[in-house]
Amino acid sequence: MKQRLDKLQHTINTQGWDHVLITDPKHVYYLTGFASNPHERFLGLLLSAAEEPVLVVPALDAEAAHAASIVNHIVTHQDTDNPYELLKGIIPGSAGVLAVEKEQLTVSRYEQLQHHLSVSRYEDAGPVLREMRVRKSPEEVQVIRHAVQLVEEVLQRGLAQTKAGVSEIELVAELEYTMKKLGAEGPSFSTMVLSGPNTALPHGVPGSRKIEPGDLVMFDLGVYASGYASDITRTVAVGQPSSEAVRIYETVLAANTAGIQAVKPGASYASIDQAARDVIANAGYGPAFVHRLGHGLGMDVHEYPSVHGQNNDTAQTGAVFTIEPGIYVPGVGGVRIEDDVLVTGTGVEVLTTFPKELTIIG
Amino acid sequence: MKQRLDKLQHTINTQGWDHVLITDPKHVYYLTGFASNPHERFLGLLLSAAEEPVLVVPALDAEAAHAASIVNHIVTHQDTDNPYELLKGIIPGSAGVLAVEKEQLTVSRYEQLQHHLSVSRYEDAGPVLREMRVRKSPEEVQVIRHAVQLVEEVLQRGLAQTKAGVSEIELVAELEYTMKKLGAEGPSFSTMVLSGPNTALPHGVPGSRKIEPGDLVMFDLGVYASGYASDITRTVAVGQPSSEAVRIYETVLAANTAGIQAVKPGASYASIDQAARDVIANAGYGPAFVHRLGHGLGMDVHEYPSVHGQNNDTAQTGAVFTIEPGIYVPGVGGVRIEDDVLVTGTGVEVLTTFPKELTIIG
Repeated sequence: MKQRLDKLQHTINTQGWDHVLITDPKHVYYLTGFASNPHERFLGLLLSAAEEPVLVVPALDAEAAHAASIVNHIVTHQDTDNPYELLKGIIPGSAGVLAVEKEQLTVSRYEQLQHHLSVSRYEDAGPVLREMRVRKSPEEVQVIRHAVQLVEEVLQRGLAQTKAGVSEIELVAELEYTMKKLGAEGPSFSTMVLSGPNTALPHGVPGSRKIEPGDLVMFDLGVYASGYASDITRTVAVGQPSSEAVRIYETVLAANTAGIQAVKPGASYASIDQAARDVIANAGYGPAFVHRLGHGLGMDVHEYPSVHGQNNDTAQTGAVFTIEPGIYVPGVGGVRIEDDVLVTGTGVEVLTTFPKELTIIG
Repeated sequence: MKQRLDKLQHTINTQGWDHVLITDPKHVYYLTGFASNPHERFLGLLLSAAEEPVLVVPALDAEAAHAASIVNHIVTHQDTDNPYELLKGIIPGSAGVLAVEKEQLTVSRYEQLQHHLSVSRYEDAGPVLREMRVRKSPEEVQVIRHAVQLVEEVLQRGLAQTKAGVSEIELVAELEYTMKKLGAEGPSFSTMVLSGPNTALPHGVPGSRKIEPGDLVMFDLGVYASGYASDITRTVAVGQPSSEAVRIYETVLAANTAGIQAVKPGASYASIDQAARDVIANAGYGPAFVHRLGHGLGMDVHEYPSVHGQNNDTAQTGAVFTIEPGIYVPGVGGVRIEDDVLVTGTGVEVLTTFPKELTIIG
């Protein structure tokens, strides 16, 4: 935490900013060690060129903040206080250049800041935080690895209960129960189990449909553990799938492999996406791959980088992201195979280890 | 949905707006029937004074949107498209006055809109949506009632498993599992089970601590069902609690009752908060009640109104909110008792029915 705070403090000076106001609770955690969900209450970490950092927290979190935060100057506000007046008290004169998190700050809060503070210019602190977060430290990779191990154990237990007659939401309940039982903080997103025709909906919602013989069943799940997310998708068949379903499966698996092989330091995200997309296009399913290849993974289950054809940023050592090609054909079904990968000094390490050959259950 | 769309369409005319851009996924659902989590992708419903509504959705949600939305004009964008360019295509000339959801829209998106559209003035659509949402229809109340019934069943089953030696997170896992099993969409927030000294942390995080004889155990949980939230807190004792714990319990219960009795159409939220707060202050625990009395409940588990001492808005028929006084004393423990209430034509109906007398388990 201290290193991160120092790095951000250093950035303030090199960028010529006067203050940075961090309002994303995840970033407050990242920088101070204090994790919380303030709901609609105001939570902010104010760093300044000349002053010590100040953490502004709702009164009801004061004790927890004091226990966890490495920033010791903590100011609390009751629900009846105006937190922007409080900020004004901390920066009474001209605030100069203030960097805020534009991708997280709402327009309402922005207008409150504009109303209460004398700011000469607003800058976006987002890219700096993003740049800090994209290169995972070895400690962060270890935490993600643990979140991956947990979700793979969960998936394995879920597959053991998968058979004809079991409903999608029953499997979701089992999977999320197992997550908690194994010590995960919770799912990193709404666990998805889709079966049969529902697999053709890339963002379908699990329902009461019961698995039938011949179905494809798609599992997309992840957990948070120690504040970091994992994310994996596997698609299995219950009973013999149709020959087209098998062909789709093999195509997606080949695309997944091609995407992974394209990952190395310096490769553009566009080229990684293209490597997987070409496989699917060459098999004639191009229009059925309706989403990007993947997304960054860390404290958020969806974070920078976005792995798609228009992102010409290049992969850097320490980046962790998903590779998840999919093909969705109404009337036939859908297949997606998703792994979590780490860019190493020389290439790629696949953090997910779950088998990818087509599994036929029952 | 149609009535709601019509109402918002009517507002556009009475307010003199040219367009409204709805970007909160919950409000897109509220107005069109299409529920989705677009993650960081752009989702927007554009209403205009002169044109038919247009729904802009990520391509991978196209099928689901067509199936669910009562707005038939649906425009889709791929991950490689710029959705703001797309909006520019829909409003090619001067956009005039554009109302946006300032409490939901991020500064980044706001700047994208400013960059791509020719808007003469931005207004906040938030208050209009808030006003629509605060008065729950009888159908909405029925849905909330169902969410309350579900969570009370969950709580009852959870209490049956509560005893010395069971850990907080084990109970959380059991409760959330039961939610899913009973058909809830999921918890409406992270289920909280705190025990012993941890109950003194109003927003504590459940951990591996095992319940010990003499502990207070606090359960704060809710579910989403059909898109609406419930929220309940009960505090029980496992074994004989200390005499101060009992005194705290009785004080909180009296405050809960006083708060509920103060609810009627036309009563200010400040007066409702005060009624409960007075009871706690008179018992000498004023400083230990560190949060507002309650919050609105509906499609969001925390929504308008905020029930606190500075909110002089008055309760209106159809409003649903929580009454949840609490006392937190480090070294002794904490108690919170939370009910969900509906403002009726003449007074109040308490939607939660779970017993509130101090329950001693074992």
